[in-house]
Formats: sequence, C-alpha cells, structure tokens
Amino acid sequence: MFREKQGIDLKTEHRVEAIDPTTKIVEGQTPEGKRFNMSYDNLLLATGSSAIVPDLPGFDLQGVMPLKTLEHGRRIKHFIQDQNVKKTVIIGMGYIALEMCEALHARNIAVEMIKPRPAFLPWMNEQLAGMVKKEVEAHGITLHLGHKVNMIDKSNEGLRVICSDLEIEAQMILVAMGVIPNSKLAEEAGLELGPNRAIAVDQGLLTSGSNIYAAGDCADAFHVVTGQRTWIPLALRANRAGWAVADNVTGTKTILEGVAGTAVFKVLGLEVSRTGLSMAEAEEYGFDPVEVMIESRTRAHRHPGSSFIGVQMVGDRTSGRLIGAQMVGKEGAAHRINAVAVALHAGMSVEAFSQMDLSYAPPFGPTWDPLLTAANQLLKAM
Amino acid sequence: MFREKQGIDLKTEHRVEAIDPTTKIVEGQTPEGKRFNMSYDNLLLATGSSAIVPDLPGFDLQGVMPLKTLEHGRRIKHFIQDQNVKKTVIIGMGYIALEMCEALHARNIAVEMIKPRPAFLPWMNEQLAGMVKKEVEAHGITLHLGHKVNMIDKSNEGLRVICSDLEIEAQMILVAMGVIPNSKLAEEAGLELGPNRAIAVDQGLLTSGSNIYAAGDCADAFHVVTGQRTWIPLALRANRAGWAVADNVTGTKTILEGVAGTAVFKVLGLEVSRTGLSMAEAEEYGFDPVEVMIESRTRAHRHPGSSFIGVQMVGDRTSGRLIGAQMVGKEGAAHRINAVAVALHAGMSVEAFSQMDLSYAPPFGPTWDPLLTAANQLLKAM
Repeated sequence: MFREKQGIDLKTEHRVEAIDPTTKIVEGQTPEGKRFNMSYDNLLLATGSSAIVPDLPGFDLQGVMPLKTLEHGRRIKHFIQDQNVKKTVIIGMGYIALEMCEALHARNIAVEMIKPRPAFLPWMNEQLAGMVKKEVEAHGITLHLGHKVNMIDKSNEGLRVICSDLEIEAQMILVAMGVIPNSKLAEEAGLELGPNRAIAVDQGLLTSGSNIYAAGDCADAFHVVTGQRTWIPLALRANRAGWAVADNVTGTKTILEGVAGTAVFKVLGLEVSRTGLSMAEAEEYGFDPVEVMIESRTRAHRHPGSSFIGVQMVGDRTSGRLIGAQMVGKEGAAHRINAVAVALHAGMSVEAFSQMDLSYAPPFGPTWDPLLTAANQLLKAM
Repeated sequence: MFREKQGIDLKTEHRVEAIDPTTKIVEGQTPEGKRFNMSYDNLLLATGSSAIVPDLPGFDLQGVMPLKTLEHGRRIKHFIQDQNVKKTVIIGMGYIALEMCEALHARNIAVEMIKPRPAFLPWMNEQLAGMVKKEVEAHGITLHLGHKVNMIDKSNEGLRVICSDLEIEAQMILVAMGVIPNSKLAEEAGLELGPNRAIAVDQGLLTSGSNIYAAGDCADAFHVVTGQRTWIPLALRANRAGWAVADNVTGTKTILEGVAGTAVFKVLGLEVSRTGLSMAEAEEYGFDPVEVMIESRTRAHRHPGSSFIGVQMVGDRTSGRLIGAQMVGKEGAAHRINAVAVALHAGMSVEAFSQMDLSYAPPFGPTWDPLLTAANQLLKAM
C-alpha cells in the first residue's frame, strides 16, 4: 500500500483498548488476539463518531440499516438491489435523513419518515422549515412527526416499525438518528470531554493530555459567535483539524479559530443552508436575539426562472452583532450563506453587514441581494 | 401619477442648464422653451451616465445602436423584429457586450465582436479570461481583438464596420463601449470631480457644494480595499446611494462605507465574478500583490454534474491582506464571490480567510470550498 511504501507502519485491525498519558503508551489487541503496546511522542485521536442505534427490539434485524460509513452505504445499495426494495422507512429527519430521502425518491422507492419530536427541522425558523416540509410532502413522502419508535418487527412486507399509536410496514428501515463522538478511549484515559461528550481540544487541537491531539468528529471546537465550546461534526472542520495537527506535530504552529456552524444540504428541489446561531441557541447563550424572515427572489424581477428564496437573519440587540442566518430556496441558498459565515468570523454588526457590496446581475438575484434585504429589515427590527 | 398624488411636483422635460451653489438656484428651460429657475434647500444630482458613442462617421446610421436606457433596449428589440436581423456586430467586449452576445445568440442571431485592445477581459487573470473566451468562441461567436473601428458605412447587407485591416458586414451594430458619468452640470457649477470625471462625494453622498448631494452612476465612491476614490457604476451602489441621500436630507444621518468592486455576469454557459483588485490595480495602488489561480470542482468528487471552477486570488505581501478574487465556472461562481467581498470589507488577511467555516455538501462543492483551496495556495505563495 501507498502509505506503507512511504515507511508508515499501518497496524490495521489492531484494537487500541487503553491510553496511558503518563507513560505515553497505548495498548490493545492484535487481529490474532495478542496483546500489544506502543509508545508515542505525539498521539492523535481520530476515532470519529458512530451512528446512534437505539437499544430497542428489532434494530438488529436484517434490513435495518444505520448510515455512517462507506460500508453502510454499500450495504444499503446492495440490499436495495437484492431485495428489490420499493418501500422504506427512515427513522430521523435531519440532514442525512433528508439527503437519503432524496436519493431513495430518485430511485422510485416510496419513503416514509418518522421522528419523536413534533417539530420538523426544530432549529429552523418555523416558516422556512414549513417550506422544506411542504417540498418533501409534495414529492409524496409521508412525514410522521411526534412518533417515538418502540420496536421493529418482522412482517409480511418484510419489516414493521412499531410506535404506541402507529405502525408502518417497509422492506428496509434506515436509522438516521444522528451520531455520537467516539470518545470512550479518551474518557477512560482521563482526558477532558466537551459538549456532547466530544473530546475537548484547544485551538491547536491539543486535548487535556500532554502531547495528545484529537481531530475529526470525535473532537469539539470553539464557536466563533459564542466563543464557547461546541460540537458540530462536519467534514470541513474534521479535515482542517487533521491538517492542523499534522502541522503542529511537525513543527509548524497552527491555530484554528473555530467554527461558525455553517451547514448546507439539498433536498429534492430545495437548497437549505444555515450559519451561526438559531433563535433558540442565541437565547441559550445569553444573547438578546431579534429575528426577521424575508421573502425575496433568486433572480431579477421578471427574469426567466426566477423563484422564491427565504432568508432568516438573527441579530443581537445588546451588541448590534449579526449572529446567524438561515436560507431556503430553489437556487442560490447554498453559496450565499458563506457571505454571512465570513461576517460572523469577522464579528460584524448587522449595520456593517447591510453595507456589503454583494454581487448583482439579473440571472443571480435582485439588485439588493436577499441577504441585504434581510439585513436592512433586521436593522429596523433591532 | 402616483408621485404627484403624494404632492411631489414632477417637472418632466424641464432641462436644467445651470446650478448656482451660492444662491442655491437651478435654472433651465421648460418644454415650451421658456426659462425657469428654482431655489433649493437640498439638491440631489442623479444625472446618471451615458453610453459612449464615438464621434466617427456612420455611428449615427439607422441600425447602429447604443445600449444604456430602457428605450435603447426597446429600439433594439423592435429593429431585430422589423428587419429580421440575422447578423450583428457588437463593438466592445465588456460585461454588457457579453450579456448582449448571449441574448442575441439565444435568438439565433450570428454575432461578431470587435474591440481595439488585444486582451480579452484585460482586468482578468489570463487563464480565467481564456476560459471565458473559449466558451464564447465555442458558441460560434467570432472575436476580433486588436481592431480599432474607424467608421461605419452602408453596405449590401445593411451596414459595414470598417477598420484599417478588417471589414465586417452586419444588419445591426451594437455600440457597447462603456459609459461616462453625466457630470457636466456639476463641473460647470464648480463642484469637485473624482476618477473618470464622476462627481466626487463624501461617505454621506455630499458633493463639494453646500447641500448638494450626488448619487447613482454620476457619482464616485470610496473603495474599501484602497481607501481611495473610485468610479464603478453598478446598480447596487447607485440604489443604495439614493436611499442614503434620502436618509440624510430627511434627518437620519447615513454613511456609506464604500464599494469592494464586486461584479458578476453570465455569458452563455459560464458565471464570471470578481471583487476587489486585479493584479494590475493592486500594483497601481502601491500594493505588493501575489496572485494564485487554482482549478477546482463545482461539486464533490464524482458527484453527477460536477464541473470545472477556476479561482484567482490576490494577496498583499506587505500587509498579508486579502485584496481581490475572480472566478469562472459553469455554476457557483456568482454567489461564492460574496464571501470574499465581505472579507474585503472586514480588511481580512489571507490567513484569516483560509480559516473561514464555509458551507459544504456534495451537490455544492468539494469539502474544501474552491475559495479555501485558493486561500491555502495563496498563503504558501506569500
């Protein structure tokens, strides 16, 4: 293998079972069941996260699939082909669940989705969330909100999801209930944990253990809006943190500022994006938040193909700062959010943001970009 | 009319011929040829800009059309219909020329374009400009670079564009050679002029004349990167300046920070965008600029529909500041540029920009947004 040719000793299938930060030794078991231990100068914990699969009857049945790893993806694909799957239930309604809903719908597989809480995309402005919900339902997908799954059983069709007040049959059940950080090793080694039990790291990705770094979904980060620790396991941060650790252990001091919580997904005909804090998060962190939701167009007035775009924007009354935004639209919501992300990193006020010289041409938006319209309205509301 | 119902006295077709800033009187001629004069407390000059039409033989022939006003647009549309136009020459190759090229091509009208300077989009990174040129030529549009038009004459086909070494026949000729600010009145009133003879205004849109404001294409602005006066006549600034004057004369003090020179256009299958300074501009303003051009993808690796996107980014070696960017791509270039525009307003360093938490999902880009890849490469080059 390439890495081995470079002189890197790849101990695949070696399970690390303990870390001793004092003696700087990791120990565990080889594939052959033998004990091993290795000493280190620097240690990187890149243990990732795991899909949440509840400890309830039937979640281990064939056809009940979590989705986290590439292997999970392959299993789902093969199962669909082998079993000629025509009907699926997805447990969960987050980003991944909705992306899977789109993927299955594109293969003409019927989808029903189910989750315990009554709110669809609960972190989102209610009107915007309503737009996404409408889009999903318009494609024939049934959403069961407020139903807690008690168990899964076999049935005539293959499988049956059982709640106290609802039963749904399907050939395949996807478990998309989110992920948890793989931080057990770190915890047992006495390392400090942060939000959601992710491994706490400083801006140089160093844990509370001497010469022990953590990067990826297993580690936390600082939020540039709150200045507090947060756990938002997304690809860019994970990748960036890995590079930063490499820099730091090889002698190039690298500090990561933090995350703004920028995220985007596509579901059916819609782009959905967010950055910074939602209203609930802003309140939780002690801000005095004000929110507006504006409706604008994705292209200039009467330009062919112009469609709806909704922008929610949150400001802090006390400081005047811009602290978050959310967007939903058929186009232009994914990349537009980045302008707000940069403003959050810069600690910009809503007033300053309202002065940004954003791009305009008829195929791409109105003269006043929807973000500027939102900022202007938010200024008035503050 | 609506405005008159609101008590606003609309003196249409009254030509203002002089302003006296000392006595605060404007004077001119009524539609009936009578002299009039009016006194003012506050005066707004919103005289706009005019299409450049050279004083050369034949530019007044029927079928030779400038494009600036709505009336020009209507004339062009009717001329195409009435004369069943099948072949056009466009003089100029800027934004407007290229947008018209696309519009005519969509109507199956053959287009040849001609300009005196040898470089296509001379403000642009050469590789990026080459991509746009290739796209235009791939659609069967002939580009004649480095040819100065000496005159236009009548011909068998209708009209003939005559250069010293080239003649092109066409039924219609569009003159898209840029615009100049309508600043003659201001100049004659003794007001200060700025770059390109635009009316010089402060951040409150006040000219050098007491209680005289100017807004729109006739007025200049401060550039947030250079801090110097600039003249970039685009829609958002014009509109924003108008509102700011309204605020200022009605008692709400409003200050505009300035422009970043953000611009975007669509030509055929490409989005083209820029913000901040080009290499040439950066040198002109005394920066020590470094440039990179990177090639990336508009969607994640192997995602269906992924295509090429090119990003040029300019940093200043002395200060470490990010000072400009340009992008070309089939998608994602128009709105992405706004993230850089915000960074320019914030005076961000290239290093800081490389840390931005930008959005990622497979349909919208690679894990490292093309802007971040460019920033990472630029950091190395500085």
